[in-house]
Amino acid sequence: MRIRLDITYDGTDFFGWQTQSGKRTVAGVIEEHIKSVLGVAVTLKGAARTDRGVHALSQVAHFDIESTHIPPQNIAAAFNMVLAPDIKITASAEEDSDFHARLSAKGKTYLYKIFVSEIKHPLYQRTHYIVPPPFDSHKAEECLSYITGTHNFTSFCYADKEGEESKVRTISAAKITENGNEIDIEITGDGFLHNMVRIIAGTVVKITKNKKFRPEEMKTIIAACDRQKAASTAPACGLYLKEIFY
Amino acid sequence: MRIRLDITYDGTDFFGWQTQSGKRTVAGVIEEHIKSVLGVAVTLKGAARTDRGVHALSQVAHFDIESTHIPPQNIAAAFNMVLAPDIKITASAEEDSDFHARLSAKGKTYLYKIFVSEIKHPLYQRTHYIVPPPFDSHKAEECLSYITGTHNFTSFCYADKEGEESKVRTISAAKITENGNEIDIEITGDGFLHNMVRIIAGTVVKITKNKKFRPEEMKTIIAACDRQKAASTAPACGLYLKEIFY
Repeated sequence: MRIRLDITYDGTDFFGWQTQSGKRTVAGVIEEHIKSVLGVAVTLKGAARTDRGVHALSQVAHFDIESTHIPPQNIAAAFNMVLAPDIKITASAEEDSDFHARLSAKGKTYLYKIFVSEIKHPLYQRTHYIVPPPFDSHKAEECLSYITGTHNFTSFCYADKEGEESKVRTISAAKITENGNEIDIEITGDGFLHNMVRIIAGTVVKITKNKKFRPEEMKTIIAACDRQKAASTAPACGLYLKEIFY
Repeated sequence: MRIRLDITYDGTDFFGWQTQSGKRTVAGVIEEHIKSVLGVAVTLKGAARTDRGVHALSQVAHFDIESTHIPPQNIAAAFNMVLAPDIKITASAEEDSDFHARLSAKGKTYLYKIFVSEIKHPLYQRTHYIVPPPFDSHKAEECLSYITGTHNFTSFCYADKEGEESKVRTISAAKITENGNEIDIEITGDGFLHNMVRIIAGTVVKITKNKKFRPEEMKTIIAACDRQKAASTAPACGLYLKEIFY
């Protein structure tokens, strides 16, 4: 039987999603609990391989098991009793055998959180990218407007990932919400390249904060298909995997 | 000369404000930095002795020093370069010698943050008191309406603190803000007893969540002047010292 888990975590103290020997990773921790609670060694397949320090409001993963003494819908509560405070299972359920956490996903939403502050605010440093004021959210919004649609996002992809794989993705929505000093960027697409949201966030911040850059610069950067044209990757602590669509 | 510091901290990894030998406390950490950066051993006087795990958006403290090689207004930036990520100085300035962080304070605002969630959400467990749904914020608001005004708050004071000290305080505002699953309780008063905001929060949650209790119960609890009548103290992680008024 195939079991689906919906997972939320504070990524600060994890070495990312992917199981790595000797490191505390999200998949590694859950695989350990599957072994100790359900008694079988499995490989957990996640919808997205979040990097070190990246958070998830809702990650999805699946694994296969012959049978379980705990009804699938109760696995979440059973695991939550023993999981560390920085990771919880929000739902568990049996799925059809053709369900695949990653391959069945039709799209994802990522959230990138910015906090505008002169100081590295202690209460936001784990959860936000802190940038000094001023921050013109209307300018940022215009930057984001250029990424919606279908584009080759090579400029916004981690440069070591050469390969033949297509860098074309479709972004269906990119919006910004301002609440006092808190700026949330939310991007929904059919798929994302490695570091894509963080490079977009870094570039939006750079253009927004620099008077000599205009929002249209985003168009030029996309068209260049060159990672060097975009800005530095924004920090992992601001990034949240928000939702996976099936 | 008297120096005022405005301080913000994530209280999670501190044993509270007050200097204690061998423990990492907020005042202790700042006193160490005054010694290492300014070269003198001082006693820092804080406006409020926040307990272990309680956060501050804005704490105020002062200390006296003969002279300083760093202009007072630059002390904040100098300290911030060496302070840990969970504590920062938001402002520093010279004050008149009759300024006293605690005694000159005319009032304070505390914030208590609640997150309504079936699970102990990893991204809120350091910063909010997590209570299961449903949560009727209108009922909570009515509970809070009874605490404004001048009352003897013995029922909402840590019971070990007997003493002769007056337990009468004036609460000028107690309001609630609801933003999705996030509930913020903000209370402003001329002074607060030990654990007062946390016991109020615990009692508001208990009355709000229990169908057999009505909001008017708050009046009865205040009138009883008996700590046993109020609910358990809500957790420290939800409490924030928000502002000191002078």
